[in-house]
Amino acid sequence: MNSRYVLKIIGGLLIALGITMAVPALIDFYSNHPNWPVFSLCGLATLVFGLVLYFSAANAPSSLSISDAYLLTFLSWLLISIFGALPLFLSQENLSWTDAFFESVSGLTTTGATIFTGIDSLPPGILMWRSILQWIGGIGVIVLAISLLPALDSGAGRIFHMESSDQSEKPSPRMKPFIQALVQIYTLLTLLCALGYYLTEMSPFEAVAHSLTTLSTGGFSTSDASFGHFTNPGTYWVAIVFMVLGSLPYLLYYQAARGNWEDLVKDDQVRFFLAFLGISTAILTLSVWPQGNESLFDALQQVLFHITSIVTTTGYTAIDYSIWGTLAFETFFLFLFVGGCSGSTAGGIKMFRFQIILRMIQVQFKRLLHPHVIVTPKFNGKPVEADMREVVTLFFCLYIFFTCAVTLCLSTLGLDFITSASAAATAITNVGPGLGSIVGPVGNFQPLPDTAKWLLSFAMLAGRLELFTVFIIFTPTFWKH
Amino acid sequence: MNSRYVLKIIGGLLIALGITMAVPALIDFYSNHPNWPVFSLCGLATLVFGLVLYFSAANAPSSLSISDAYLLTFLSWLLISIFGALPLFLSQENLSWTDAFFESVSGLTTTGATIFTGIDSLPPGILMWRSILQWIGGIGVIVLAISLLPALDSGAGRIFHMESSDQSEKPSPRMKPFIQALVQIYTLLTLLCALGYYLTEMSPFEAVAHSLTTLSTGGFSTSDASFGHFTNPGTYWVAIVFMVLGSLPYLLYYQAARGNWEDLVKDDQVRFFLAFLGISTAILTLSVWPQGNESLFDALQQVLFHITSIVTTTGYTAIDYSIWGTLAFETFFLFLFVGGCSGSTAGGIKMFRFQIILRMIQVQFKRLLHPHVIVTPKFNGKPVEADMREVVTLFFCLYIFFTCAVTLCLSTLGLDFITSASAAATAITNVGPGLGSIVGPVGNFQPLPDTAKWLLSFAMLAGRLELFTVFIIFTPTFWKH
Repeated sequence: MNSRYVLKIIGGLLIALGITMAVPALIDFYSNHPNWPVFSLCGLATLVFGLVLYFSAANAPSSLSISDAYLLTFLSWLLISIFGALPLFLSQENLSWTDAFFESVSGLTTTGATIFTGIDSLPPGILMWRSILQWIGGIGVIVLAISLLPALDSGAGRIFHMESSDQSEKPSPRMKPFIQALVQIYTLLTLLCALGYYLTEMSPFEAVAHSLTTLSTGGFSTSDASFGHFTNPGTYWVAIVFMVLGSLPYLLYYQAARGNWEDLVKDDQVRFFLAFLGISTAILTLSVWPQGNESLFDALQQVLFHITSIVTTTGYTAIDYSIWGTLAFETFFLFLFVGGCSGSTAGGIKMFRFQIILRMIQVQFKRLLHPHVIVTPKFNGKPVEADMREVVTLFFCLYIFFTCAVTLCLSTLGLDFITSASAAATAITNVGPGLGSIVGPVGNFQPLPDTAKWLLSFAMLAGRLELFTVFIIFTPTFWKH
Repeated sequence: MNSRYVLKIIGGLLIALGITMAVPALIDFYSNHPNWPVFSLCGLATLVFGLVLYFSAANAPSSLSISDAYLLTFLSWLLISIFGALPLFLSQENLSWTDAFFESVSGLTTTGATIFTGIDSLPPGILMWRSILQWIGGIGVIVLAISLLPALDSGAGRIFHMESSDQSEKPSPRMKPFIQALVQIYTLLTLLCALGYYLTEMSPFEAVAHSLTTLSTGGFSTSDASFGHFTNPGTYWVAIVFMVLGSLPYLLYYQAARGNWEDLVKDDQVRFFLAFLGISTAILTLSVWPQGNESLFDALQQVLFHITSIVTTTGYTAIDYSIWGTLAFETFFLFLFVGGCSGSTAGGIKMFRFQIILRMIQVQFKRLLHPHVIVTPKFNGKPVEADMREVVTLFFCLYIFFTCAVTLCLSTLGLDFITSASAAATAITNVGPGLGSIVGPVGNFQPLPDTAKWLLSFAMLAGRLELFTVFIIFTPTFWKH
């Protein structure tokens, strides 16, 4: 293991994080909020710690083994969460360390579950910091999917290569300009989203804070009521459009920016994702509309907003959708697992895995009838090879097992069935709100026992890093090398 | 397609079914119950229908294509269910056709969900007929697993061959004497179970009726209270032992009967299954015991009885275990899916699939660390090949998808979340009781809407025949050939 190079990279990331804390410090300073020294000091501490790490390993050789890469992935997410929690813990909001860490993990993993109540009256610096954590987590996951996961692989990396039309034999295209382009696209979309929010209803501050958590499909809001705080339908449509844009494969944006729009429009996963949103919205609207007094269009907009929010794993809410009846209740529970597209900021199991599994089932029927005929399922016109198929189905199984295990652990802490199952699911899938009175759309993770918060923090990290990447560190095999 | 040979076999099965109806007819006749002509007439009708089918196709060539085999499997289960429902429908119990069919399917698939209330006062012929249907269904599934599934294959067939030490190159051992031996073993175990019940507490009638539904892991009882009707702990231990025996691979009994006990004792699946029962009982006992006033041993016995009943997919109940708290509630929900061993009468996903998936996950960790090393998971010392691994994981995915789909459909009929989810699960896994006040341990499927009963009947059949076998008939590809 080349652990020193791992420390050097993490040091670099912490330097960046420390500098970023200047933003909430300045906001609190200019709005005359006494919280600004907290952010300044935490930023300084993070910066110094990062510098120490970086320069203590400055001359480490620039190479990573596979196990280094796993360690780097997990440790960087963990340490940024810890340092990100620092200003929350030291602020005047009297948070316990458990609560501060939970909130920071929930931010960085773009989950959006919160332990805060009275969000509307939080200092602006803290509100912005929560949004920034999600925005960093969002771009972090895209970069991870592109730079590390193809080597590590839980399916997402390979699907990314399948999507890429740069099918050259060379190991990989030059990474740095590529990643720079992705950051530019991400930033541009965020700015457009902020503009949209501002033009429809929000204050400049709200518009920026929400655009950061929309594009990252994170879901933190500046109000306890989340989107229920806003009334202009236009605001909702801006949110719908940019949540969807945040959940599409960023590689396809990159190609579209170079003139190749066709891949974006014809992509299997994108089409399936949009069709899924459309069809499920149509069905659920027909079930929900007759129960209320709204016009069909208003009902459709509310249903589309909430389905998009769940499926893109954003987690904004506007009303308590548990009043929409059992079908909606079950739909929202199951949709927690669905997730957006690969190579985006969305969490969950993700569309391409469902597509591949469904095609495997189709192919299986053919095989059962014609055992000697060789049929291979295809994705975007290319055959999905056996090892890829195995990784995809195995990921699905592990996802279900892990969700069940976390659910059982939560229930030993005294949580009821709906709360434990939906809290486990919403953490692992990085959606945010669960179901029931505690963790549901009008609830809050604050009343959970501390042990539950630690368990859920781990679940959010594991889900965000696609399970295998994290679990592997806890296998004996990992430490033999 | 050689549909005529399919009809001939089904004709033969209906002839046997018609003759079997003489048993409840005689029981009702000797106990002076006015219901006996119903069974006599239905038996005669079934016999005549069977004879017509059989002789109309008497000279059909004795060969089955693969699609014939699928059709035969589904149609035989469907038609026996229909004719098995006939005496229930025509009895003096005033059942609707929906209820009679549901009860018959629940019997034949060894599910054990019932629409009857006031079971204690049902005519003895009907009580025995329900038990006989389960017993027939039990041996039917074992024979299916041995004679047809190896050709059809959803994993269970191949695992059966992996377990078999007759790894000869010949197509298959001589089937007829082999199946005869299995029927003898099944019958012998049933008789021993009946003797055990009789010696501990039950009347001869109760002992026979319950032994038929114990070995078939069916779970129909002669009382509304199910095993709550009995008080002797010995009765419970007899039930535990024979439910477990009913869930072990019958092939291993066959080999044990020929002197080879080692395979039974050393079998991977058997060991995992017993360890699973032991460990989960220990954990749940520690959770349940402090809540009540029972001795530790009594609590352990109650927990073991109910866990065994669920995991073996029998479905006997003695108390309302939903009072045992959230952990027990969730455990019982999840354990619905587990199931017994392959090649037994148990339903569910089955132990060997979980074992193979868990080993695949282990191997996946090794692969992630050493991408160029070839590792293959093993089962009973033999490598599990890629196509087998694919079928096993795919079966798991399809199982989860189908359960979610049935749950959603049930909830559109107005059923609540717990009822729809647990009714779907308990039907597909062929356990019997679900959770909640309607379909739970003290409830009954009678109050469900008719559409729900039809849907659940289909789910029971599909689950019993391992999904692929049934769904394939509804694919367009099937009918092209």
